[in-house]
Amino acid sequence: MVKGLKPFFSASGIAIIGASAKPNKLSYGIVKNLTLYGYQGAIYPVNPGAKEILGLTCYPDIKNVPDPVELAVIVLPAGMILPVVKDCAERGIKAVTVISGGFKELGEEGQALENEVLDVIKQNGMRMVGPNCVGTMSLHTGLNTTFISGAPDVGGIGFLSQSGAVLGGVVDFVKDKGIGFAHFSSLGNEADVTETDMIEYLGDDPNTTVITAYVEQIREGQRFLEVVKNVSQQKPIVLLKAGRTAAGARAVSSHTGSLAGSHAAYQAAFKQGGVVEVQSVNDLFDVSQAFALQHLPQGKRVVILTNSGGPAALTSDSLAMNGLEMADLDPKTIEYLRSKMNPSAQVTNPIDMLGGAEPQDYEVALLAVIADPNVDIIVPILVPQSLVNPVEVAQKISEAAATTQKTVISCFMGDAMVAEPRRVLHKNKVPMVVYPESIGTILGAMLRYKTCLDQPQESAPVFADIQRETANKLIKTAAELPSLGEAETRPLLAAYGIPVVAGGFAKTAEDAARLADQIGYPVVMKIVSPQILHKSDVGGIRLNLNRTQEVVEVFQDMMEQISLAVPEAILEGVLIEKMAPKGQEVIVGMRRDPGFGPMMMFGMGGIFVELFKDVAFKVAPITRLDALDMIQSTKAGTLLAGYRGMPETDINAVVDMILRLSVLALDYPQIGEIEINPLVVFPKGEGALALDGRVIFGG
Amino acid sequence: MVKGLKPFFSASGIAIIGASAKPNKLSYGIVKNLTLYGYQGAIYPVNPGAKEILGLTCYPDIKNVPDPVELAVIVLPAGMILPVVKDCAERGIKAVTVISGGFKELGEEGQALENEVLDVIKQNGMRMVGPNCVGTMSLHTGLNTTFISGAPDVGGIGFLSQSGAVLGGVVDFVKDKGIGFAHFSSLGNEADVTETDMIEYLGDDPNTTVITAYVEQIREGQRFLEVVKNVSQQKPIVLLKAGRTAAGARAVSSHTGSLAGSHAAYQAAFKQGGVVEVQSVNDLFDVSQAFALQHLPQGKRVVILTNSGGPAALTSDSLAMNGLEMADLDPKTIEYLRSKMNPSAQVTNPIDMLGGAEPQDYEVALLAVIADPNVDIIVPILVPQSLVNPVEVAQKISEAAATTQKTVISCFMGDAMVAEPRRVLHKNKVPMVVYPESIGTILGAMLRYKTCLDQPQESAPVFADIQRETANKLIKTAAELPSLGEAETRPLLAAYGIPVVAGGFAKTAEDAARLADQIGYPVVMKIVSPQILHKSDVGGIRLNLNRTQEVVEVFQDMMEQISLAVPEAILEGVLIEKMAPKGQEVIVGMRRDPGFGPMMMFGMGGIFVELFKDVAFKVAPITRLDALDMIQSTKAGTLLAGYRGMPETDINAVVDMILRLSVLALDYPQIGEIEINPLVVFPKGEGALALDGRVIFGG
Repeated sequence: MVKGLKPFFSASGIAIIGASAKPNKLSYGIVKNLTLYGYQGAIYPVNPGAKEILGLTCYPDIKNVPDPVELAVIVLPAGMILPVVKDCAERGIKAVTVISGGFKELGEEGQALENEVLDVIKQNGMRMVGPNCVGTMSLHTGLNTTFISGAPDVGGIGFLSQSGAVLGGVVDFVKDKGIGFAHFSSLGNEADVTETDMIEYLGDDPNTTVITAYVEQIREGQRFLEVVKNVSQQKPIVLLKAGRTAAGARAVSSHTGSLAGSHAAYQAAFKQGGVVEVQSVNDLFDVSQAFALQHLPQGKRVVILTNSGGPAALTSDSLAMNGLEMADLDPKTIEYLRSKMNPSAQVTNPIDMLGGAEPQDYEVALLAVIADPNVDIIVPILVPQSLVNPVEVAQKISEAAATTQKTVISCFMGDAMVAEPRRVLHKNKVPMVVYPESIGTILGAMLRYKTCLDQPQESAPVFADIQRETANKLIKTAAELPSLGEAETRPLLAAYGIPVVAGGFAKTAEDAARLADQIGYPVVMKIVSPQILHKSDVGGIRLNLNRTQEVVEVFQDMMEQISLAVPEAILEGVLIEKMAPKGQEVIVGMRRDPGFGPMMMFGMGGIFVELFKDVAFKVAPITRLDALDMIQSTKAGTLLAGYRGMPETDINAVVDMILRLSVLALDYPQIGEIEINPLVVFPKGEGALALDGRVIFGG
Repeated sequence: MVKGLKPFFSASGIAIIGASAKPNKLSYGIVKNLTLYGYQGAIYPVNPGAKEILGLTCYPDIKNVPDPVELAVIVLPAGMILPVVKDCAERGIKAVTVISGGFKELGEEGQALENEVLDVIKQNGMRMVGPNCVGTMSLHTGLNTTFISGAPDVGGIGFLSQSGAVLGGVVDFVKDKGIGFAHFSSLGNEADVTETDMIEYLGDDPNTTVITAYVEQIREGQRFLEVVKNVSQQKPIVLLKAGRTAAGARAVSSHTGSLAGSHAAYQAAFKQGGVVEVQSVNDLFDVSQAFALQHLPQGKRVVILTNSGGPAALTSDSLAMNGLEMADLDPKTIEYLRSKMNPSAQVTNPIDMLGGAEPQDYEVALLAVIADPNVDIIVPILVPQSLVNPVEVAQKISEAAATTQKTVISCFMGDAMVAEPRRVLHKNKVPMVVYPESIGTILGAMLRYKTCLDQPQESAPVFADIQRETANKLIKTAAELPSLGEAETRPLLAAYGIPVVAGGFAKTAEDAARLADQIGYPVVMKIVSPQILHKSDVGGIRLNLNRTQEVVEVFQDMMEQISLAVPEAILEGVLIEKMAPKGQEVIVGMRRDPGFGPMMMFGMGGIFVELFKDVAFKVAPITRLDALDMIQSTKAGTLLAGYRGMPETDINAVVDMILRLSVLALDYPQIGEIEINPLVVFPKGEGALALDGRVIFGG
């Protein structure tokens, strides 16, 4: 459980250190905002040069501020902050928000200063929001330590942002639209309190029904993942990540002064953690609002009711693009609608009540589809027409929505004309958007979250048969090596219970022949030489050797040929391997992400990974379902499942190997990369076999 | 040139037939709108039951309406419209807008009525907009025959819509935002005037600088393509198509009463025709407005100026996702900015002037990047802060933008706070959006259009070496067949100059041997039997036959084996083909779309087409560049170009085959499908060879 964040949203008293008496200063704005939204605690401006600010007694320093004071908001030049934080510590204040910039974001010197401040915070068991932030806001207590003009309505959205400036824009976006917030927080440099802390806090906050986050980077990936896995079981987390492209990541790192990391790792972590990732600022609030107001969909069958065919068609497109389906209405519903509606109306889905549709028509149609067992989700659409009052339609929709547990999301096209209907709808917990295309985005996000909630909760499996001692020895032997080749990787994989093709290293023709006899024919021979990377280019791979004598001859021949072709190569010997039966070839691997740790990888290999980007990632530890999801989310997985007459393959065996490899990756943090390529997958029940593998140490 | 559409936007006089004196009727709204926006022509309400409406003299019927009258707007029950249209014809009125519904959209009976009305229109050389529409509007003449309340500002956007209801929502969206329109038209059932007519008309209209269209279906695909190819060279056409998914297409066809057709065909036609397709209502107007106001980008290098890092990062993401690049600023620009800006500001791209940035800072930075030769596009971003006046920033941006030919698109995050800045910016021809993600969408669309304009204008090539007589004979012979198999397709392709592997049909072992001797070894033998579809499953394909005797033996063996295996099969003989050298295998084909005609197809074949959707389409006739674009827009094309050490192949030969196949498809409309599969492509300069092909007749 995260500790000490409560004062940032409901302190009994707040000191504003560096409060100015001049109305054109930001610190004055903070004091003013504390007086505007019903905050019931004490407010203490601290400024040695002023007697009072906005009628509030001003104190010369924090030591002189009377009780109760639980939060200090500091707005002073960076250079003055360290002693003031020390004073706060002495005064027994456990929560500090540092609004001022001038720290890490400016480079090394700023980072050093930030570290000093952080030391004081840590030593005294304090918590700090910022520095370089816009403060925090609780719409429920009226506590508002920002200088943003205006505030959103009260509601269930708990918002946190790594960009302070964005907060102001957001407030202006949502103001007067009935989009209700519980908390607002700007986290700045996150020297102490991080996005993960705040998510954990809001996860436990009863006023917060949905957590909404604008994030540029996550530093403690494994902790983040653990927290969001937990919190997302309680309430949805809707997140917008900046830096999804290389250009965006560069912009983020020039902004925050640290590397944003790979978006593949972020995406994997979000999916695993049940985080609903969105792609735009617009979607961030549309989706959050829908979660805050509406029931989760119990299925994917949508009915559209509309007074105009165009927006219904656009909505249908957006639904299909987001995994929703158009409901097949019950014949009884159709018959009923036919008897009640304008005879020209279309009474199948989308139900088009035509331009003249009255509030009454919406009511009749809504109640009919609410009663229809084939419908999970209802989307009423109105394009305001001159003769119909949109507010009355909004009221009818609100009333009908209140009678059902089905999901209702509405679209009213327009701007000024739909402002009042929106307030009516939002007040009655029916989300409203103005663009048909938003409907699919919202419902797609809700469906993803629902699917995630419905998934059985699993733990990462434990394998009793892993031979850790053998593995430890192998790793210890390799202590100083940069990597392990095929010969050394093979026993390591085997120790983790990953079936590897039978084989071994042979120094001489005689060794090779003995090994081949032992393994059984046919066998494959591969040259082993540190100087030769592409074995087949120099004739260093020979398949399908069937007899002892053939092995001896091919060995001698290979040594001779390669010595001539690559005179500088040191030929250490050969690998003799059992010739594996044919099967589907895939790649399984791991690479360690600096932020999230071991990222497991699955794909089809070859041009499929590079040209078609047919590859999936997950952050270890992973569960059986995670591994299965990796496979199923690729085209390689479609092939493994038996595509167009191809046989179904042993997907369980692949799941097992990904899981075992993830345990290996977690056991040895010194391993930077592992690749099994190819892994040959046989028909269902017949397993899979690693034909080749390598390990690279370090990051 | 499209004729007769001028009266819909600038008639010298307008009769409103069926005008009501009751303010709660739509027809009253039309009369009112004609009086509201400065329309200078005569207005004649026609209603036998009224003396005057809104102070205008009312006429009992159209015959009694005095001159000048160039347009009749009819708002009467469907059953009354035919005689009225006849009266209009007699009165010499050449333009009619039928607002009323009750026609094709209701089914067969309505369709019959619509046809009767259309006959009158055609017989009298008249033009009709509608029926079942909302009318037309010219913002330049003030002519407004809609009943929509409110009107947008005057400007360059010419908007046409196949959904009337959408128009009302659109007016409400754009109102008071300084988004300027030239024309507005609702096309309804398009009995006479179609979207293509209107695009052609607006293409010639000097007030229209960008054409914006909401489209559900296009009926005359080939004419549409011809018109937009032409018009898009003059001005951009921005288009939103409903029915992009199967669900959307079903919604469209239940709405319009006709099939929407395949979106692959639409997409191909839009791309070929230089139409800028967008994905949402929001994008439709954002993109149109940018075209209407700003210079086209001269390159893809973007600089961002901002007072907040977060939105800059989100913008960078959206730019990268849309093919734009972040500009590398000239060192002189960086040095200059360093000397002028807040020392904490970031002076590389994105230029972050921090939260306190003043209008002055924007001015200084804008002028610096305008002068920078490394910059093509400038994106100023403002998140309003309490101490900075956003209107003043808007003014500075406007002034700077007026001094340059570079593209300037701005983002001001917020809603109420940015309303006035938006009006200032739009008045000064700087587009403004509120969401960072919109920037990439807009600039991506502008870049696509610019690329299309820069492309050299080509005609479809003419091939002098096509043996049309041979082809005619082959097609005539096949007159009654449903399809042509491999043996018959081969000479047809050859007649069009497509290299096909040497080979022929042999009935007996002796014929087969003679043919093989003639072709030269090695050869392939394939069974020919109408009952056998999958030849290799029954041993009906034998590769690599090297001698006469082998051919004879394999023939006898094949006949025997297959007779035993598939006793019901009639074995007509075998195909003998030259064994082709190895190469990259691709598919080239054609399928005839009901709307657009022959759609040429290129892809990699096998699972790549079906599982990876790696396939490209174009509507014939196509140019050399079109064919090249088809290849380059697939992953198959990436492989052909020489991927990761693979040899570059003979792409020109593939281009040539696609072109020749397109001529074949155009020459024989009775051909429904052609497929060359596989086409083997050899290294550059060594050509390509069709190994197998088939033709299917009919649609």
